[in-house]
Amino acid sequence: MNAEIRLSEDALISRYFAPIAGDGGFGMRDDAAMLTPGEGSDLVVTVDALVAGVHFLPDDPPASIARKALAVNLSDLAAKGARPRGHLLSIALEEGWREDWLAAFTQGLGHAARAFGCPLLGGDTVRANGAYWLSITALGEVPRGEMVHRFTAQAGDVLCVSGTIGDAVLGLALRSGTTEPWALNIGIQSRVFLTDRFLHPQPRIALADILRRKARAAMDVSDGLVGDLAKMCRASDVSAEVDLEKLPLSSAARTLCEAHRGLRDKLVTGGDDYEILCAVAPENLEAFLTECAQTGIAMTPIGHFRPRDFAQNGCLPIFSDANGQRRYEKGSYSHF
Amino acid sequence: MNAEIRLSEDALISRYFAPIAGDGGFGMRDDAAMLTPGEGSDLVVTVDALVAGVHFLPDDPPASIARKALAVNLSDLAAKGARPRGHLLSIALEEGWREDWLAAFTQGLGHAARAFGCPLLGGDTVRANGAYWLSITALGEVPRGEMVHRFTAQAGDVLCVSGTIGDAVLGLALRSGTTEPWALNIGIQSRVFLTDRFLHPQPRIALADILRRKARAAMDVSDGLVGDLAKMCRASDVSAEVDLEKLPLSSAARTLCEAHRGLRDKLVTGGDDYEILCAVAPENLEAFLTECAQTGIAMTPIGHFRPRDFAQNGCLPIFSDANGQRRYEKGSYSHF
Repeated sequence: MNAEIRLSEDALISRYFAPIAGDGGFGMRDDAAMLTPGEGSDLVVTVDALVAGVHFLPDDPPASIARKALAVNLSDLAAKGARPRGHLLSIALEEGWREDWLAAFTQGLGHAARAFGCPLLGGDTVRANGAYWLSITALGEVPRGEMVHRFTAQAGDVLCVSGTIGDAVLGLALRSGTTEPWALNIGIQSRVFLTDRFLHPQPRIALADILRRKARAAMDVSDGLVGDLAKMCRASDVSAEVDLEKLPLSSAARTLCEAHRGLRDKLVTGGDDYEILCAVAPENLEAFLTECAQTGIAMTPIGHFRPRDFAQNGCLPIFSDANGQRRYEKGSYSHF
Repeated sequence: MNAEIRLSEDALISRYFAPIAGDGGFGMRDDAAMLTPGEGSDLVVTVDALVAGVHFLPDDPPASIARKALAVNLSDLAAKGARPRGHLLSIALEEGWREDWLAAFTQGLGHAARAFGCPLLGGDTVRANGAYWLSITALGEVPRGEMVHRFTAQAGDVLCVSGTIGDAVLGLALRSGTTEPWALNIGIQSRVFLTDRFLHPQPRIALADILRRKARAAMDVSDGLVGDLAKMCRASDVSAEVDLEKLPLSSAARTLCEAHRGLRDKLVTGGDDYEILCAVAPENLEAFLTECAQTGIAMTPIGHFRPRDFAQNGCLPIFSDANGQRRYEKGSYSHF
């Protein structure tokens, strides 16, 4: 197996993709996939592209790249209250691609598809003109009319976030060989934990059903808490206040933040969290948190939504800590 | 508007994508799209990626690239008997991308979406690490259980093909500045016609419903007639005989073939036709052709399916003309 090996697209499909295809994929023998929607359900559809050198590092393990590509889409579905039904993959192989890379990638994708309950239905494999890239479209479903939106938060709703925030941006920095002060004396355990949070985001599929029944609005945090909350506020035409003292941090991130002032800004503006940000009506909060607790996934109230402030910030959220208020004008990771 | 202009992803979405989004896209205010499936229908899903320098030429008009990206997916849906419902787009902008390129691209996509009745539901816009690329996922629907497959052709079925074959491969050669003999004295009208067939494939949406009711199997011809028929035969575990004298050619292609012996091999092995290849039971043929004729899209019987030949070729189709039989071992365009 080396860079010289070249297979026809058909051979690639039958060797690597057919074995991991789900029922609706007809073992990749057809040129389109089929999905029978559940009775009385709406389909929720989302697509996310990942580019080598932009969204993942060229030497990230191929199985991790595959898993992450699926996970980030399932994170979107979970935030919409949707149960995963299947996915389609476009993948472009760069000049000099190796068959063992593709073997590890498809094995990782097959494993993730089983773990997340979201089978591969179909795809397209092409030659890249540049670096590797892939695009995954995920399909999920919700009972009709029950999709959770990001534009429906209301003033007075409690703002909650799942898991912990900021681990992935630290993990990415560590994998990229950062020489920033916080990274110099970091212990091996923290390094492994944070890197894993970057490489292997956990789509919060178990929260989907609870969000659908108990949350007023939700989205996943992919481009950074600050920027994504700003988007949710703009879309809902409200503002929000966040108490940064309540921000859920992993023990690794908390230790680093205590030692390095200013690092917290990186955590709340960095991307790749793939946690759920949601708006919950106060009267639903207790039941919501109780149900979330039963999944084993932390859910933390960190503030609340408030009316848009016409005089001052418009929809821009306000962040406060023991030292006062902070504003972030450009909070979000952007590809351009 | 020049290469220096950079917009946030949000600004890109609201400026270029939100105006062309369909209902299920919520004006791109949400981070996932929704589709309410028709009562008692199955969803048919397909994805196709196009890469600059691989599937289209870097100087192809951006509106044509957009239109083609959608058309090739709708060609797949039509072959499956499915009515288009919507599509999602992943697009990667290369270093130095120009806003006027994107403006023309999205305008072309919006126009094609309306023309084909297949609204944009959602997407993802990222930075390329190399040349432009895009991936479109199209969703269609059929009455439950009525998807047309490519693996269901039976020995004895008549083999038919829509439109004309081979125009696009000549159009691509002309656009690429070929100096092959056939291209030297070609008239301007033929040049324009053939180039247009490459740039603007016509998805045979009007045939979808007829295929669903009257064809036994179907696929679209995207990688060349010879190679795609071989795939259909392998998938159906049958073989086929094609009478090359019956091959439907445009007047431009026919004139060139008559003057240049051997050019026909290029037409039947070249890609980008986006015509429909189908298997029709003999007893349905007359009604099938009558209904097709009413759409104004030509449908031509060019041969028939026969049992797999265990002694000789297995599933490999046989092509014959006035001079005898021809075989094509490697008939299909492949990206690898």
